[in-house]
Amino acid sequence: MYRNFSIVPKIMFGRGSFNQLAEVIAPERVTPGSYFVFVLDDIFIGKPLESRIPLEKGDLLLHVNVDDEPKTSYIDALVQQIKQYNEILPDGIVGIGGGSTMDIAKAISLLLKNPGSSADYQGWDLIEIPSVYHLAVPTLAGTGAEISRTTILTGPEKKLGINSDYTLYNQLILDPELIAGVPKDQWFYTGMDCYIHDVESLQGTFINEFSKSYGEKSLDLCRQVFLDDHPDKDDKLMMASYFGGMSIAYSQVGACHALSYGLSYVLGIHHGIGCCIAFDVLEDIYPDGVAEFRQMMKKHDIQLPKNITADLGNDALELMVTTALNLVPLWENCLGSDWKNLMTRERCKKLYLRM
Amino acid sequence: MYRNFSIVPKIMFGRGSFNQLAEVIAPERVTPGSYFVFVLDDIFIGKPLESRIPLEKGDLLLHVNVDDEPKTSYIDALVQQIKQYNEILPDGIVGIGGGSTMDIAKAISLLLKNPGSSADYQGWDLIEIPSVYHLAVPTLAGTGAEISRTTILTGPEKKLGINSDYTLYNQLILDPELIAGVPKDQWFYTGMDCYIHDVESLQGTFINEFSKSYGEKSLDLCRQVFLDDHPDKDDKLMMASYFGGMSIAYSQVGACHALSYGLSYVLGIHHGIGCCIAFDVLEDIYPDGVAEFRQMMKKHDIQLPKNITADLGNDALELMVTTALNLVPLWENCLGSDWKNLMTRERCKKLYLRM
Repeated sequence: MYRNFSIVPKIMFGRGSFNQLAEVIAPERVTPGSYFVFVLDDIFIGKPLESRIPLEKGDLLLHVNVDDEPKTSYIDALVQQIKQYNEILPDGIVGIGGGSTMDIAKAISLLLKNPGSSADYQGWDLIEIPSVYHLAVPTLAGTGAEISRTTILTGPEKKLGINSDYTLYNQLILDPELIAGVPKDQWFYTGMDCYIHDVESLQGTFINEFSKSYGEKSLDLCRQVFLDDHPDKDDKLMMASYFGGMSIAYSQVGACHALSYGLSYVLGIHHGIGCCIAFDVLEDIYPDGVAEFRQMMKKHDIQLPKNITADLGNDALELMVTTALNLVPLWENCLGSDWKNLMTRERCKKLYLRM
Repeated sequence: MYRNFSIVPKIMFGRGSFNQLAEVIAPERVTPGSYFVFVLDDIFIGKPLESRIPLEKGDLLLHVNVDDEPKTSYIDALVQQIKQYNEILPDGIVGIGGGSTMDIAKAISLLLKNPGSSADYQGWDLIEIPSVYHLAVPTLAGTGAEISRTTILTGPEKKLGINSDYTLYNQLILDPELIAGVPKDQWFYTGMDCYIHDVESLQGTFINEFSKSYGEKSLDLCRQVFLDDHPDKDDKLMMASYFGGMSIAYSQVGACHALSYGLSYVLGIHHGIGCCIAFDVLEDIYPDGVAEFRQMMKKHDIQLPKNITADLGNDALELMVTTALNLVPLWENCLGSDWKNLMTRERCKKLYLRM
């Protein structure tokens, strides 16, 4: 049985395409008295990008903070804020920022229509009511959040996505100019999120030709960006991220993403850097990928944090192991159906202790 | 100003995925008393594929003949046939076959909702009413018809597509098993349609990183299929076709496709073989591509028809030239804004006389 795979149905790509945002959303402004919500990473407060947002009368500019990765309680509070702002639902949500901001915008668009807390929907296909129209403008490239059918949230009990076809964006505007000003470390860690999930997807047991075509081209583009020097590297990284996301269609990520979830849940480490920290100890599982990754780190003079688990008590370490090993499909993709015998709690703990 | 590019929003890919057709269309069977129309290339009459079509009570199995490429008069007659079969509109159209059959199914789904003749809509964005739901099951790979926003028709006055976002399929089922039994010549010519439009797109002046990523991977897959030997070559060709179609998003085909249109309009030569005949005289414009194409022909022992324009009168030849040169965006993409000085009627005629 094959999955029937939904994809974002409308895409605009090009340098300066952000200037066409007003025109793209105009046909969606249909309800009298309604409005658009622009969800903006608060790092852009007072920056030129903020002043370029095509606000119309009644629109809401919602600054969000992503110092921590998105929590379900934060989503619930933002949804309440919008409902208090106007009793009419917005005609659309525009998410402008990196993976966390894009995930917040996705979650808001779902929770404005579906009752209860966002924590109620962490899992697979639990959303029943279609979301509000939502559009993404990535300002970072690599997470694949712009194309994925999930919004990854940290809830009271778990870090887990709201996976649903309704989570998918209705429209993307991919403007490579917007990722030009990202600080180097963040650019690298976010790009490596893409590189690593390509490696995990291509080396996984679930792969087929659909996912392989996307994954191989994404990997090729990552190499051009992080090993070569290209004047159009921002364009290439944006396409690498999109293709990397598409490669997950009939595939899965693997060991590194699972370990990164544990780091994030227990230590609050962001996903991109968490993936890098975890990947650096996975040479047994991904020997070629890890070697190439270290070459990329060297070229860009990246120093990973060390000894991050040194001061952790055993309970915290055990919780980290449990969080990682709960991600069954990731381990199955990585190590096959016999994964439980291959990745014991002991082995997993040893990996964490090396980070 | 960038184009806002629509894509087919749902895709199922995999060997044997045709078996899930009934389940995929089940949620679309919504109107009481309505039905589905299965548009099937008549080459499959009595073949195993025909008996695998999940017909339900009231459904219509519509055999279509594609010995000639689709004409607007043929579309109009088929639409009439469906309207006479049942005064209720079908809930969906399923096109099963190669590029011509897929184009027929697209055109039917548009014309069931839009009044008048299909010839009235040849051009760009002339369709105003959304089509009936339509789904494609390709049995040949290379045309990109499964993913394009056009259905190419030969009308009383011109060969030109109905280009519209409504033309796009709502769903694809890409089952590589279905292309296994294609006769070698047809397999080659259709695959070359893809190879050639990749070359034209990548070498064109319109290219950007979005189209380049798709075009380069499509070309890579074509090489794996036609120069190497792979057990999964059918999967690869199906992905090459899909990626080749996607590469046209922000790009265009070029000289070869333009010349092939002339061959088709005047001599009724099918598009795939027409592209091969035209490409073989275009070594001045696409030197590397033509050299590699000849290598592929040699490997698969393909003999192109020769002297096909030898017996043509001057009027017919002039009409061919006019047909080709009317395709302005193709020439602009190929030769830049100065194309009229570079591709004179005289030069174009000489190219035709070499075929």
